[in-house]
Amino acid sequence: MSIPFTQLVNSLPDTVPFVGPETLERINGKPFKARLGANESAFGISPLARQAIRDAAGIQGCSWYGDPENHTLRSLLAEKHQIEMSNICVDAGIDSLIGLTIRLFVERGDTVVTSDGAYPTVNYHVSASGGVIHKVPYKNNHEDPVALLEAAKQQNARLVYLANPDNPMGTSLDAVVIQELIDDLPKGCLLMLDEAYIEFMAHRPVLPLTVDSTQMIRFRTFSKAYGMAGMRIGYVLAHHDIVNGYNRIRNHFGVPRLSQIAAEASLNDDGFLKKVQDCVDQGRQRIYQLADTLGLNCIPSATNFVTVDIGDSERAVGLIHALGKEGVFMRKPMVAPQNRYVRIGIGTEEEHEHLESALRKCL
Amino acid sequence: MSIPFTQLVNSLPDTVPFVGPETLERINGKPFKARLGANESAFGISPLARQAIRDAAGIQGCSWYGDPENHTLRSLLAEKHQIEMSNICVDAGIDSLIGLTIRLFVERGDTVVTSDGAYPTVNYHVSASGGVIHKVPYKNNHEDPVALLEAAKQQNARLVYLANPDNPMGTSLDAVVIQELIDDLPKGCLLMLDEAYIEFMAHRPVLPLTVDSTQMIRFRTFSKAYGMAGMRIGYVLAHHDIVNGYNRIRNHFGVPRLSQIAAEASLNDDGFLKKVQDCVDQGRQRIYQLADTLGLNCIPSATNFVTVDIGDSERAVGLIHALGKEGVFMRKPMVAPQNRYVRIGIGTEEEHEHLESALRKCL
Repeated sequence: MSIPFTQLVNSLPDTVPFVGPETLERINGKPFKARLGANESAFGISPLARQAIRDAAGIQGCSWYGDPENHTLRSLLAEKHQIEMSNICVDAGIDSLIGLTIRLFVERGDTVVTSDGAYPTVNYHVSASGGVIHKVPYKNNHEDPVALLEAAKQQNARLVYLANPDNPMGTSLDAVVIQELIDDLPKGCLLMLDEAYIEFMAHRPVLPLTVDSTQMIRFRTFSKAYGMAGMRIGYVLAHHDIVNGYNRIRNHFGVPRLSQIAAEASLNDDGFLKKVQDCVDQGRQRIYQLADTLGLNCIPSATNFVTVDIGDSERAVGLIHALGKEGVFMRKPMVAPQNRYVRIGIGTEEEHEHLESALRKCL
Repeated sequence: MSIPFTQLVNSLPDTVPFVGPETLERINGKPFKARLGANESAFGISPLARQAIRDAAGIQGCSWYGDPENHTLRSLLAEKHQIEMSNICVDAGIDSLIGLTIRLFVERGDTVVTSDGAYPTVNYHVSASGGVIHKVPYKNNHEDPVALLEAAKQQNARLVYLANPDNPMGTSLDAVVIQELIDDLPKGCLLMLDEAYIEFMAHRPVLPLTVDSTQMIRFRTFSKAYGMAGMRIGYVLAHHDIVNGYNRIRNHFGVPRLSQIAAEASLNDDGFLKKVQDCVDQGRQRIYQLADTLGLNCIPSATNFVTVDIGDSERAVGLIHALGKEGVFMRKPMVAPQNRYVRIGIGTEEEHEHLESALRKCL
């Protein structure tokens, strides 16, 4: 290698967290008919957001840099969550915020605790910052707060990552369990609580929105329920001293202006979120029934996807591959023992019908 | 400070590179009538891009993650620049690419050489990565390649930053001078060549698009001539081994999908770029004449802004402030001796008229 990268960069592999569906489409030579693999929303964006984008698609929405303070959006979020604007940092999606979080708290060699098979982008960012990932196993397809806490103590971890609801398994934890984890965290260790799918967790109480803890950072996004994955906008809720840290290292002009505009419009559309939640709920029932019809077990989901048990990992890999040939894009948990499942995103009914016929053919 | 940030983060100031115009509007209690301070385009985006955004403003453009390979866009860029796709890395704007570049090459304590008063976002990212900024003075309102090279050698620098054309002064350098700088760079040191404004440099030959050097990275953007500053999309042109480094640490799903779509449409709109170049050229003449009428000297510009000599720094600061009260947003070079200038962005004729009357009132 003749390029004088840092030692750290030289040590990094050329792997990427995920292969995109477009890459698979180029390999297959045809577009997917059902795009159910990336936990994107099949229900689009709020009509108010769509209109706002169309109206602003010119100088005001595209040529001007976004407001670096994200002022209007943060004031709407503060009202929605009944907290202060100083407790909110908006950035270009949770992936970016995860990267910033690692850089805020992880010195070279410091440990971050996560679950084995949880969101790989966390591990990617930890590696790119010279941190060390310590993994604990899932327990009965749930992330295990007791094991995470134990590891945090033993490894002298700086950060613990926990998604609630969880990706890729779609399970969720009680608020009280997460509160216990926070209360027992060792000094100097913070919880990264990824709540990307929180709007789909209808059946459980959500952890109260307190932001007075200096040991917790909550990650929220417009990518899932608000259908804006391609627009790159998310935020953290945290103690204002933590938010100040983000403001020291974030790209202040990094949030796309159309995304600010669309997010603001989405928050002003009271009915849209409820409609998407209903669609996702119906879609989950549809997948449960389909799995039942096909003699497959699935895990009750608190997200916009359902994990279905295919029996063993090889069979699950084969199924994903075969479904791909049939025009269905799907991903699966990558780590044992969860890797015997496939993860089916909630789609439109047209996509579900295509999925059903493809599944019947491939199984 | 009770938050256990890294030592580096604790050492960083709470300052930000720029205050946004929206912040000033909130302070002033009214919107600007002429937005001429952020080097944004007053000529919007390509009509093809606008239509593409409007058409895609739904599931396909917003709800789906962008193609992490930026395949279509890179293939169009490869054709445009007559290079290989493997020589191109697309990311969410030059600001993001600068941050990645620092992380690729700068170990804690390593030096980056730049000009005193050049783009402050570079310094911001260098600080946030624990690097050290070494500044050399401008020479006759131009960045000084000889001084940059000398400093790179003396300081054992890893990176040298040079913008051509330059921001904030709007001047440019001959291709041959830049080629000499590259040829003489010490081993292990790379040139970051920021060409954000290159499309406005009509009067000088552009450095040939060779990407076989392992000591140069060229930064390009859709923010300026293509009018897409708010859309966050730019790219580097570099040796493919350098591009591989970016691929190890970038946010693979970080480029907004609408921005990919709009950039692709812009490249397919042959006439648009020429039209903007003509508008900018006419706008520069307008500002030159206005300055002349007002008895002010200005520097011939190779960019979409013109720097005008106000005589001394205090007077320039006062003018910016007074213009702000009159509804004109403008910025100025911050470092002596360039700080006696103000930087006037090329606007629409309506904005120029407003600027003219405000200038007559405030001077």
